[in-house]
Amino acid sequence: MLTADRERLVSLMTEQAEFGGTDAGGLHRLALTEEDRAAREWFRERLEEAGLDIRVDAVGNMFGRRDGTDANAPPVLLGSHLDSQPYGGRFDGPLGVLGALELVHVLEEEDIETTHPVEVVNWTNEEGARFQPPMMASGVWAGKYDIADVYAATDDDGVTVEEALEAIGYKGTEPAEPGEEYEAYLELHIEQGPKLERHGKDVGVVTGIVGLTWTETTFYGQPNHTGPTPMHLRQDALVAAGELITQVPRTANKLSDTTRGTVGAIEYDSEAISIVPDEVRVVWEFVDYDDDLVEEGYQRTLEEIDQIARREDVDTESAEITRFDSVAFDDRCIRAVEEAADGLGYDSMRMHAGAGHDPMNVAEVCDTGMVFAVSEDGLSHTEAEYTSWEDCYAAVNTLINAGYELAK
Amino acid sequence: MLTADRERLVSLMTEQAEFGGTDAGGLHRLALTEEDRAAREWFRERLEEAGLDIRVDAVGNMFGRRDGTDANAPPVLLGSHLDSQPYGGRFDGPLGVLGALELVHVLEEEDIETTHPVEVVNWTNEEGARFQPPMMASGVWAGKYDIADVYAATDDDGVTVEEALEAIGYKGTEPAEPGEEYEAYLELHIEQGPKLERHGKDVGVVTGIVGLTWTETTFYGQPNHTGPTPMHLRQDALVAAGELITQVPRTANKLSDTTRGTVGAIEYDSEAISIVPDEVRVVWEFVDYDDDLVEEGYQRTLEEIDQIARREDVDTESAEITRFDSVAFDDRCIRAVEEAADGLGYDSMRMHAGAGHDPMNVAEVCDTGMVFAVSEDGLSHTEAEYTSWEDCYAAVNTLINAGYELAK
Repeated sequence: MLTADRERLVSLMTEQAEFGGTDAGGLHRLALTEEDRAAREWFRERLEEAGLDIRVDAVGNMFGRRDGTDANAPPVLLGSHLDSQPYGGRFDGPLGVLGALELVHVLEEEDIETTHPVEVVNWTNEEGARFQPPMMASGVWAGKYDIADVYAATDDDGVTVEEALEAIGYKGTEPAEPGEEYEAYLELHIEQGPKLERHGKDVGVVTGIVGLTWTETTFYGQPNHTGPTPMHLRQDALVAAGELITQVPRTANKLSDTTRGTVGAIEYDSEAISIVPDEVRVVWEFVDYDDDLVEEGYQRTLEEIDQIARREDVDTESAEITRFDSVAFDDRCIRAVEEAADGLGYDSMRMHAGAGHDPMNVAEVCDTGMVFAVSEDGLSHTEAEYTSWEDCYAAVNTLINAGYELAK
Repeated sequence: MLTADRERLVSLMTEQAEFGGTDAGGLHRLALTEEDRAAREWFRERLEEAGLDIRVDAVGNMFGRRDGTDANAPPVLLGSHLDSQPYGGRFDGPLGVLGALELVHVLEEEDIETTHPVEVVNWTNEEGARFQPPMMASGVWAGKYDIADVYAATDDDGVTVEEALEAIGYKGTEPAEPGEEYEAYLELHIEQGPKLERHGKDVGVVTGIVGLTWTETTFYGQPNHTGPTPMHLRQDALVAAGELITQVPRTANKLSDTTRGTVGAIEYDSEAISIVPDEVRVVWEFVDYDDDLVEEGYQRTLEEIDQIARREDVDTESAEITRFDSVAFDDRCIRAVEEAADGLGYDSMRMHAGAGHDPMNVAEVCDTGMVFAVSEDGLSHTEAEYTSWEDCYAAVNTLINAGYELAK
């Protein structure tokens, strides 16, 4: 079995965390910002150092390629993303990118040739924190999104994706599309949940990705002065929102032990305290690997909203803004990951990913699989996110052996 | 009995509504803005036209004085405010200011002299929408607030009250204090509640003003990715806030049929949907004429917050930001208003005010009373606020006769 250079891995993971690094040990590296540019420049040097042919496509995806022995064999792609949440952790994304690079280093050092080319990729804007939607650039690459729409997406300051790509010099010249057949895609990512840790496992063999719905609901009440307005005459949009906020998790708990229901955003603009709230917007989410349970959560909540509106005497409007169906990975990729873990003597478990990842898009192009690394306390999207070097090492070893198996 | 000139009243009320008037027929006339300045200039001309001696004090309060026959008799003050909520109605404030001016006009036309001087006042920033606290300038005048503190208060753009007063030319030269003894203060205001309309009354005889508490509570949860984080491991600050939002009105309903409980503000800043909310701030209010019930609502809600925090496994912090005790008006003012209504043949009822008003502050200086005009559907602090000219007229007649009674 191949083994990663642990010292190099730790050193590269430490170096990358300096670009947008926060005092609390996390990352503030929103897509296409100055911090992202600096991380990309550093990563480009690392690709050059590894002797790879580099290309940047029209949405900023960065590829580094090591040729195979068969000029006609389709490449095996491995990677993840270097951008972060506004205050995210240092493992979410970079570990998968540098893990992929490690395969190239090990192949070079061991003087191993592969039939298939091996490519390393850094996908642009996986997080979707500055620009919506998330997984935007792998989506363009896979043909799910139109590049014109993605270019036109704006951040809170009205800057478009296209302007931001140009500003940091990463609107590349290559078309944002596969351009050729791909043999397979593998991505290593931190789990972002507590399952591996709770089961005492070393690595996760990911069998697929959950589906989800996001729906925006607005309640319209009657603004009025709070002091003189009797309780029974009120039409309070915030009370209606409060009922929805507490109901969504109850609905999730009722559906199954795997369904997650969350109200993740609320907006009520008022300059005054003493006015009965008149317009409150919330966004609620249901997530499950079983698409039927996502749909059931969605339907039950729409019914619940009608009941709340009648009860609180308010008007309401709902619109689904995002729906992803779940994705089942391909058996050969799942097996490649599982057998790599077994061969290395790691204790692994099969599981699905509880959140969206670029592999959801790449799976439209070629066979796809994922490796999960342990997330301590299940934390992610916070500066407190943590994966021990031991767990990073195990996951990278699993990734490079699975990748080699598919490429050899 | 004196009777107002209905045509003049309607014409002045219509004219004032042009300064900051909105398409929906309301007012956008925040304190010390350009719109407020324009309304003040117009009002200053109206005071001049009525032959009054004008003075503007250091916090922008505008006074117009008609002398009495006894040089030593303390003045009777009548008035209200010309500023509005961000999107308020055209009656809340101006009706009381122009009703007060009507007394002067009628005395002039009928050639009536009074023993006591009669003064008309426009208080600065009653609403507290742009600058906190509300009733700021009557508070300085009555000695409740320090003028240096009030000058230093800022709006959302960091502009101070002092800068805003200077910018519109209304930082007056008179000290912001009574300067002499006052005989009494009367204010006409719209009810801002549905009681008069529901009881089929013409005017309200206000016996006092409710007390209230505002408390700011913040819930601190654990940010985490929603998809992979099991429901039972979450520490969701928004779910905790949702429980409080729905509990506060229940607590109010349980305390009495007069207690009002509201969550009037909520703040959760997140750029992402798929993160378990980690920090949510709400402001909740209890209002009642019985100060013990306000205190009971406050205490029960603090206990409830502790229970919510334990249940949802979040941290919490609460701080009371405002507390007003209720105010009981003076019998002679209450009787003056009631007898004026009776004498005019209006059907009146005694009631207390359900919201804060400048008389809360003025009551610290002299005997104080209020007249309420009918609020259609009880609406206020909204552009849809409405009082018919018939009801305006009845309330103004009541005000000027009560004022004359106290001044003659």
